[in-house]
Amino acid sequence: MTMGGSLDQARALMMIPQSVVYLNAGSFGPLPRSVYETVAGFRHELACDPAAFLLRRVPGLLWHARTCLADHVGCDAHRLAFSTSVSAAVSMIAASLELCTPGEILLSDQEYQTMRWCWERVAARTGLRLRTFGLPSGACTEDDLLDSAVREMRATTRLVFFSHVISGTGVILPAARICEQAQARGIVSVVDGAHAIGAIPVVLRDIPCDFYVGSCHKWLLAPSGSSFLYMGRAGEARLHPQTISWGDGPDRAAESPGQDVPDIHGSTPRLRRLECEGTRDICPWLAVPDAVAFHRAIGVNRMLAYRRTLAQDARARLEALKGVEAATGSATEATNGMMGFALPRGVAAGAVQRMLWEHYRIEVSVGGLGDRGMLRVAPHAYNTATDIAVLADGLERVLHALREP
Amino acid sequence: MTMGGSLDQARALMMIPQSVVYLNAGSFGPLPRSVYETVAGFRHELACDPAAFLLRRVPGLLWHARTCLADHVGCDAHRLAFSTSVSAAVSMIAASLELCTPGEILLSDQEYQTMRWCWERVAARTGLRLRTFGLPSGACTEDDLLDSAVREMRATTRLVFFSHVISGTGVILPAARICEQAQARGIVSVVDGAHAIGAIPVVLRDIPCDFYVGSCHKWLLAPSGSSFLYMGRAGEARLHPQTISWGDGPDRAAESPGQDVPDIHGSTPRLRRLECEGTRDICPWLAVPDAVAFHRAIGVNRMLAYRRTLAQDARARLEALKGVEAATGSATEATNGMMGFALPRGVAAGAVQRMLWEHYRIEVSVGGLGDRGMLRVAPHAYNTATDIAVLADGLERVLHALREP
Repeated sequence: MTMGGSLDQARALMMIPQSVVYLNAGSFGPLPRSVYETVAGFRHELACDPAAFLLRRVPGLLWHARTCLADHVGCDAHRLAFSTSVSAAVSMIAASLELCTPGEILLSDQEYQTMRWCWERVAARTGLRLRTFGLPSGACTEDDLLDSAVREMRATTRLVFFSHVISGTGVILPAARICEQAQARGIVSVVDGAHAIGAIPVVLRDIPCDFYVGSCHKWLLAPSGSSFLYMGRAGEARLHPQTISWGDGPDRAAESPGQDVPDIHGSTPRLRRLECEGTRDICPWLAVPDAVAFHRAIGVNRMLAYRRTLAQDARARLEALKGVEAATGSATEATNGMMGFALPRGVAAGAVQRMLWEHYRIEVSVGGLGDRGMLRVAPHAYNTATDIAVLADGLERVLHALREP
Repeated sequence: MTMGGSLDQARALMMIPQSVVYLNAGSFGPLPRSVYETVAGFRHELACDPAAFLLRRVPGLLWHARTCLADHVGCDAHRLAFSTSVSAAVSMIAASLELCTPGEILLSDQEYQTMRWCWERVAARTGLRLRTFGLPSGACTEDDLLDSAVREMRATTRLVFFSHVISGTGVILPAARICEQAQARGIVSVVDGAHAIGAIPVVLRDIPCDFYVGSCHKWLLAPSGSSFLYMGRAGEARLHPQTISWGDGPDRAAESPGQDVPDIHGSTPRLRRLECEGTRDICPWLAVPDAVAFHRAIGVNRMLAYRRTLAQDARARLEALKGVEAATGSATEATNGMMGFALPRGVAAGAVQRMLWEHYRIEVSVGGLGDRGMLRVAPHAYNTATDIAVLADGLERVLHALREP
């Protein structure tokens, strides 16, 4: 592999067009060329002779990808099912679990909007109540974050769902400690690791959760369509696939023997039941080892430290703009290296995003939170201080133009 | 486009390795080079700048793909949702519908195994009874096929599910007439068109079904991961996505106004609710127009007639082998141009498939039905009479070797 191990070379290993300032790994990660070439090669095989690829090549590749990802996130490969997206995996968990009623589902007040909708649907279906715990808004310690969740855990709490890293602000929650407290109370815990995997070191075996779901297509820079579901504790027997296919035959009982024995498909009966959804393109999963290799060559901790310096830089520059405020009081060291900013009141988020692209070729996420636009800077190893400066200059001009049309 | 319009050129337009005899389009269609290049091009864009591709390029491409496929299958684009697979679409329908109990679900006795499991799960969940109607096994008319379904429709039948083309034998069922009879009795009809789309002319507006699901990755030769769900009549208001994402917000009520108005995403609110499943790779859908163009250049009816001559040829050659019998008494003209054959008793299906590949580089599906192996010849425009001869010779030798080890 000709992959460089240096941050300086990271941009050259990507395929991002020269003119583009890509600061949106938090939504969609671009691919290193090495990852692209691997997944494109698999798809070439699939196009030429799909039977050969799907029936004879995939099993070995799939098990290899599974063990490689399991090693990277610190868990047993037998408990790691690939999935298409975090949304698909969380929806499957939410549809499967039979929680005691009456009772309640507890979420943080900063969960990803669609995941909140997902649990609202569970609440509507089951009669469980949905309640949120408020994360501290200012500067806070890990203990403060833990406490915000734990003090809302009650005897009637059946399930707690929270993000390992908050999608709007990058703030890291003490996932292991929250899950410990849930476990001690008999509360099922489901962790959304979309912004943790590839962004911060994650060791799943140290997190006593029931389920942990992660994206590989954001910070890990694997192809779109690669995510995973890790089954902690004993909860896996309670999951049911939403798409019925070859893994879900009459011997479907999760308690039946042999569920965790490797099969001829690159999985185990338990994993295949959840992963097999008829014929589809699972090449993104098979290219995950190349994304892991990219991270290891540079070093996950080194990338994280670097991204934090870029986030810190963004904070200093953007907070200097009139009406722009960081969305969290936490220090950069308490984040995964991304940073959200509230825009001046009355400025349309869509217009900001569009103008940053059209005039400056800056890719950045700008959404809305209440009456204020929220811009999220999501830098990666391929970004530089110049990119942050370009963003700050561009944003200043765009805000100026929008104020005085 | 440099696409030839001649059957003679079809093989040259594919990427199948020279040494391979590919007779398994019924499981997985290989890609014409034109389709491969289109989908690979989209994926290159996605790799370079995923935000640009997903946010700005996809909407126009998606609506174009939708109208192109809708035109090809004869339906209104506003009623056509893309899906990953037939399994995913049927599972979603099966999980969504609220059918009156007590009552029964009626299937043919030759449905695809996993689809039978899917409806078994519905039966187990709802208390509905699962009942099958037996398709005629010998030579029969369209009236016989219709009658086999209709005579089992009762006042307590809530839903009928059947394949437009039977996956094991290629026999075409009179889908429009069966659905008419279901409609007249107030029975919900769900049609599995996996082996119809791209194989026979299909005009969905002439089929008064509630739902019709089709694969694009088999006979249509589009990339893996491209399938669709067509919503006939009024049933669409009863569907619920299994993965909760951006299409399923608080205005989710299917009856709310504007559900069928084109949106900025290349869909409509109704379609987006079913299609949007978080971030994933929908490039296979976007390449469907190229697969349609491949078919139109040669001509769907011309390809069908040609495939039927190959199937007829296969029948003459394979039935001459000791212990091999066609799995249907129907004439080739009553099929989609594929043909199933029962192998001699006691011959292991897996060994036949493996040996045909290892010794003769023949890709063909060999499964089991009761105690007999079932070999399915699924020829396409790129196959020739020579391929059928190679299969017949190879099978003769494999059966001989297995009989006298």
